[in-house]
Amino acid sequence: MTSLAEGFVEALRRVAQGRQVPLHAPEFAGNEWVYVKECLDSTFVSSVGKFVDRFEAQLVEYTGARHAVAVVNGTAALHVALLLAGVGAEDEVLVPALTFVATANAISYCNAIPHFVDAEPRTLGMDVRKLRSYLSENADRIDGRCVNRHTGRLIKAIVPMHTFGHPADLNALVEIAADFHLVLVEDAAESLGSTYHGRHTGTFGLLATLSFNGNKTITTGGGGAILTDDPVLARRAKHMTTTAKLPHAWEYCHDEVGFNYRLPNINAALGCAQLERLPFLLGNKRELFNRYQQAFQAVDGIRLFEEPDGCMSNYWLQTVILDSEFVSQRDTLLAASNAAGLMTRPVWQLMHKLVPFASCPKMDLSCAEDLAQRIINIPSSAVLGREE
Amino acid sequence: MTSLAEGFVEALRRVAQGRQVPLHAPEFAGNEWVYVKECLDSTFVSSVGKFVDRFEAQLVEYTGARHAVAVVNGTAALHVALLLAGVGAEDEVLVPALTFVATANAISYCNAIPHFVDAEPRTLGMDVRKLRSYLSENADRIDGRCVNRHTGRLIKAIVPMHTFGHPADLNALVEIAADFHLVLVEDAAESLGSTYHGRHTGTFGLLATLSFNGNKTITTGGGGAILTDDPVLARRAKHMTTTAKLPHAWEYCHDEVGFNYRLPNINAALGCAQLERLPFLLGNKRELFNRYQQAFQAVDGIRLFEEPDGCMSNYWLQTVILDSEFVSQRDTLLAASNAAGLMTRPVWQLMHKLVPFASCPKMDLSCAEDLAQRIINIPSSAVLGREE
Repeated sequence: MTSLAEGFVEALRRVAQGRQVPLHAPEFAGNEWVYVKECLDSTFVSSVGKFVDRFEAQLVEYTGARHAVAVVNGTAALHVALLLAGVGAEDEVLVPALTFVATANAISYCNAIPHFVDAEPRTLGMDVRKLRSYLSENADRIDGRCVNRHTGRLIKAIVPMHTFGHPADLNALVEIAADFHLVLVEDAAESLGSTYHGRHTGTFGLLATLSFNGNKTITTGGGGAILTDDPVLARRAKHMTTTAKLPHAWEYCHDEVGFNYRLPNINAALGCAQLERLPFLLGNKRELFNRYQQAFQAVDGIRLFEEPDGCMSNYWLQTVILDSEFVSQRDTLLAASNAAGLMTRPVWQLMHKLVPFASCPKMDLSCAEDLAQRIINIPSSAVLGREE
Repeated sequence: MTSLAEGFVEALRRVAQGRQVPLHAPEFAGNEWVYVKECLDSTFVSSVGKFVDRFEAQLVEYTGARHAVAVVNGTAALHVALLLAGVGAEDEVLVPALTFVATANAISYCNAIPHFVDAEPRTLGMDVRKLRSYLSENADRIDGRCVNRHTGRLIKAIVPMHTFGHPADLNALVEIAADFHLVLVEDAAESLGSTYHGRHTGTFGLLATLSFNGNKTITTGGGGAILTDDPVLARRAKHMTTTAKLPHAWEYCHDEVGFNYRLPNINAALGCAQLERLPFLLGNKRELFNRYQQAFQAVDGIRLFEEPDGCMSNYWLQTVILDSEFVSQRDTLLAASNAAGLMTRPVWQLMHKLVPFASCPKMDLSCAEDLAQRIINIPSSAVLGREE
């Protein structure tokens, strides 16, 4: 093992206090049993029941968005949010190259085309300066619409993703969206609990999406939500995600091709309990960041990623970034830590490197490509931020 | 109230023994809480965990299909089954006009076009005689493919649905599929526990789909499954429903546009317990049929629907069919029974009557249209078949 790998594993081991630890484990130490049992006892475990409404109300209260519509997972939330943003067949949608595949997949479900944007090292999100100059050079604004000069296709929307919970540069993104006639849809799957200048991520775009997958800060098993301030879009989101069924005492009439995307009540019951503990978990995760900061202080060649200025991140996945000279050791570090029972992983393969998206339009992606070689996510469970 | 409505409500009341009853309620009287609690305690509630594998193994054992892939709901199961059947953009898919909207929606998700088939009164499923003669007159068989003579589009697949749990005429459908080069995909969402000449529905087509929605015979909150005997299709189904991620210790590489359709482990835990009690529930539902038979014996103008010859139905939703002369009283019966706390409903609006499918190709649908005026589903919970 190299000395860098030794230092890396030692730092992780110190924070893990000798335990074997996964990348991120949820915990059910609040009212999870109580609510799930109550849900089972009521027999309303599925598409009817009070926990869905309650979970949505809690999300509204917590995020400050005016409306929340709970759905079956974050991918479903993105799919419907994009449809509500007006994304149609053959439209292009600006999306980071550095993201989880769901962001790009959801665009494909609309028969639309992802158009990849570079990242910047300060936020790990979209590089807003590069994006503005790229659009100025490569897009035409015609009759209040944005047209890709090379493909002739409409660029309809922009979907920043808040990487590992760290907010992208939202003020600049809001301006770019306005200037280039793009609908802003935030993929806030990873950033529940993260704020940008005091305001919750997911409240800057026309629509935003959350995820409550098992690896997220809080989980409903599988689950997601659409956030919006617009009551009409919120009603449309609920309608489209519940098979577009018109209300009637007994008739089954559907007025459009809808989706079976509603969050089951039993999963919402779990979510209600999880959300109650979110502030506590966020405190743990922040403390975990402090512990890693201590532990990595003496490790040269590795930088612990810290929340961007003006932001309060949820620190969903703790992240280290290798110095450029140590890029070639990344896999050694991954192998050594995983072998030691300290689960780590690199960032996702960049979207433009995946077979299904290899021919999609893209800008120069050199920063994302550089970061992808240097990012390692390290064990991030809230419990690691507590005395045990 | 008419005397027919009085007789109808009285018969329902007799079976309900004075209780107010929903159309169909699940029950959690077995190991549901034990398994769900075990799942919560393990913290594996989401995309990893043993209950998904166990639920799939139980489905294989119960249905006799070689492979089962658990997914997030029946609609997702249909979507992926159709993709695996090779259904692509602009293909046509034969589907009953008399079905729940999910069957037609899933075809739309593939950018394909539903082509509506009439029903017949013996099974409430596809009219196989009419279908054969319709295809002979309206489709050309060219190079092992079936082409719609009028639209010029490929007719790729046929998706019979086993209405209210009653098996369609599967032997005839298997023959039609073979003769006309159609892939047979069974929509067995409603027929878990139903057999056709001793063999479980969902094992006759290349692929089949199940649903475990809250209103079904057993429920996982929301859930579904894809059944197939083909190991390659089963592997593909698992791959496509789990974001098409390639197996690797830490890399996130996806080789096609996949879906986030995996059933969460906590929902699978519920399913494992529910499936254990299925034989008991089916016994109750059969006894409930007997009770309704007694109760409706004296009611002229209403016929209780009985399983087709050679079939053993799960009697998911108990069904009465009004004599033609009383069609005009249907809504009176629905209003009277629902007002009395005895929940009833008509069949779904026929697919070709819905706005999103109004211009889809169709055969003469006179039998489905006739049945749609005459069908009423009546309270069907298993508990009504037990002494309480």
